[in-house]
Amino acid sequence: MSHFDTIVAPITGSARAAVAIVRLSGEDAWAIARRLFPALPPDAEPLRLYYGTFLHGDDGYLTLFASDRSYTAEPAVECSIHGSPVSVRALVEAAIGAGARMAEPGEFTQRAFLNGRIDLTQAEAVRDTIEAQTEAQLRMANWLREGELFRRLSELREELISLLTAVEASVDFSEEIGGLDRGLALTRLRQVAKGLAPLLESATFGRLLREGMRVALVGRPNAGKSSLLNKLLASERAIVSPVPGTTRDFVEESIDLDGLPVVLIDTAGLREVDDEVEAEGVRRSRLQMANADLALYLFDSSVGWTEADEAELEGLSIPYRVIATKIDLMKDASAVPGEHISTLTGAGIPALRQLVREFAGEMPEIVIAPRHQLPLGVAWQAVNEAMVTLRTDHPADLASVNLNEAIAALGEVTGETASPDVLHRIFHDFCIGK
Amino acid sequence: MSHFDTIVAPITGSARAAVAIVRLSGEDAWAIARRLFPALPPDAEPLRLYYGTFLHGDDGYLTLFASDRSYTAEPAVECSIHGSPVSVRALVEAAIGAGARMAEPGEFTQRAFLNGRIDLTQAEAVRDTIEAQTEAQLRMANWLREGELFRRLSELREELISLLTAVEASVDFSEEIGGLDRGLALTRLRQVAKGLAPLLESATFGRLLREGMRVALVGRPNAGKSSLLNKLLASERAIVSPVPGTTRDFVEESIDLDGLPVVLIDTAGLREVDDEVEAEGVRRSRLQMANADLALYLFDSSVGWTEADEAELEGLSIPYRVIATKIDLMKDASAVPGEHISTLTGAGIPALRQLVREFAGEMPEIVIAPRHQLPLGVAWQAVNEAMVTLRTDHPADLASVNLNEAIAALGEVTGETASPDVLHRIFHDFCIGK
Repeated sequence: MSHFDTIVAPITGSARAAVAIVRLSGEDAWAIARRLFPALPPDAEPLRLYYGTFLHGDDGYLTLFASDRSYTAEPAVECSIHGSPVSVRALVEAAIGAGARMAEPGEFTQRAFLNGRIDLTQAEAVRDTIEAQTEAQLRMANWLREGELFRRLSELREELISLLTAVEASVDFSEEIGGLDRGLALTRLRQVAKGLAPLLESATFGRLLREGMRVALVGRPNAGKSSLLNKLLASERAIVSPVPGTTRDFVEESIDLDGLPVVLIDTAGLREVDDEVEAEGVRRSRLQMANADLALYLFDSSVGWTEADEAELEGLSIPYRVIATKIDLMKDASAVPGEHISTLTGAGIPALRQLVREFAGEMPEIVIAPRHQLPLGVAWQAVNEAMVTLRTDHPADLASVNLNEAIAALGEVTGETASPDVLHRIFHDFCIGK
Repeated sequence: MSHFDTIVAPITGSARAAVAIVRLSGEDAWAIARRLFPALPPDAEPLRLYYGTFLHGDDGYLTLFASDRSYTAEPAVECSIHGSPVSVRALVEAAIGAGARMAEPGEFTQRAFLNGRIDLTQAEAVRDTIEAQTEAQLRMANWLREGELFRRLSELREELISLLTAVEASVDFSEEIGGLDRGLALTRLRQVAKGLAPLLESATFGRLLREGMRVALVGRPNAGKSSLLNKLLASERAIVSPVPGTTRDFVEESIDLDGLPVVLIDTAGLREVDDEVEAEGVRRSRLQMANADLALYLFDSSVGWTEADEAELEGLSIPYRVIATKIDLMKDASAVPGEHISTLTGAGIPALRQLVREFAGEMPEIVIAPRHQLPLGVAWQAVNEAMVTLRTDHPADLASVNLNEAIAALGEVTGETASPDVLHRIFHDFCIGK
């Protein structure tokens, strides 16, 4: 463990609340705590709550954490006081007066990483946990936080390091140990590639899970787009705060569909129009639609499928499903194409939910973050190039270049070989106090 | 201790943060905790942090509180998890599934009151602590929370009960114990009145401390009102969130003047105007000014004191101080009336701060809340009426009516005799989780 200076910050947010917690972390955290909290007994034990009055006048509990059990893997202290911004500020100022300094955003988690408690994927999962908007996002973040991705990548990385050692030994000591067993090396590389493949494939679902699946409601006027939007909003759990990265200057609403965030986009007025303002609206509608993952093409079953519908549908450049609305008006719906729904009776709505959810695909066992996609792609590519080298007559040591590249790329994901620049970007994305 | 059902709520606010705390309180709190947190050892001790994974998938710490050490004076549990609204919601829902119910606003503090841990003045002080905007407000709230007002009122109330007993005994058993010693009773009542007086007098400062002292900057155009406002805003600590109860649709800014919140009101354009919109502005300026505690009447010392200033000053209906601005432009300022200031050089600004601060008066030893003013006034009045009765030839038992009234009024402040309606109003003013 390195020895860092002592940092301080509130960790429960900055708004008024019943209770606020201020955390200290660093080599002097305990000593500073004694100055801020005279009631602490000399023989105070870690992980115990001690009640008393703080120097700044508020009362509350103080808890010591030893390095082996603290979030940051260094001595830490948590002070639980009244959730008044003035009281929090006074305590933080008192801590600074006693030798601490204000923590940067993400600095507690950065300490946990630098002190070796967690790897980079776990640090990112902490941020994902806090930012989770749906239970599926939370579940995935919990899972990553436990270190599953780290364990998998570490195993693959160690296998590559072992292969690299074998390749280099076969070159340096070819007379003593003989040439490389290319067949065995290829088998081992194939296993590594097989381990990387599902991770890379998970990126698509990962994007849907993080940013939300964009579903455009399309169709001619009066096809029932707004009714369906309202029906879905009423029956699903609405996501109140916008999913990070999405704009909301458009008619779009987010719902939580069995844990998958779904952004519904109402593309009103998709026809040709004269009015310039409206034309701009249509242009933006089309743009929004082109960025959607799925279009639900609605038509009024009582009007029937028309040539205009056929023309609109041909113009769609994204995957779509045809939905027949107002099916309650039809005496015999057997000849009506598409999925049948009625927002009046609710008929077909559960099947529609199912259809949208299935389009997103199964939730993979593990989901990588956007940052991981590029280095994992590099690793995958390098492993495949190493296989090509070993399959042909090229000298085996050419493969060591590829292996080194793959090892470094995996280390970039877990943090073993991440640049200071990458680290900075990751931790400064955190909120203060994490 | 009564046995209440178990309530649950987050106590650290509802925004995203690194950490959130969810509290359970009530007779089944520990049992429910065991269901939510399987990692809890069977022999778990109170006031200890236990780490593990909660049923809803997030990990964190759980702490048990026994009745003798919990905030609510009943069994309680605090769960420290990641500050994700989704994780908090999932844990609260799991607790409700296990038999808890969502806590009402202020219900934890209400339990502390109903279970006899704190009196009403301490409960109100908890709310004042959270809402404190300046260190002086926090100091006063800390002091009330420790129970100082409660102790004083309880002493006075017990003295009155003892007097009442003496009066009633002298009536019922006059033959056995002789008549009431009116001289002694009067001395004792005078002491009670002497104890009540400073509390009643503190109400004025209390209002300034809670709502902020309203200081209007007045004067003819170009007298330097906005320059002074900006100067004060730059040199003092600004209060970011508005003091509760003040409107901000006007040009007004709050600063923290040595702990006293001061609301500065810029009354621009105080002259007669033709324009109707502007006339409305002037009307509202005058209204704001009439509600101020103090006016600072500014005039430009380089222009000199004019008849127009004299006329404006005569129209003021509130206390004022005359301030000569731009004093740096004067070669000889000895004949200039009022306090001399220059926002350019900063001359006179500390003296002006001092002047405003002194106008508010000394901070009393204790400050009552607005709610206390009426019942304490009733008690004061009743004590004085009892003294009149005993000083004249009226039968002594007439005084017992007054004494009963005073005893009830003091009990209304501390909560012994507060009506359910008063209790409801007090606790529903709290935030959720307190």
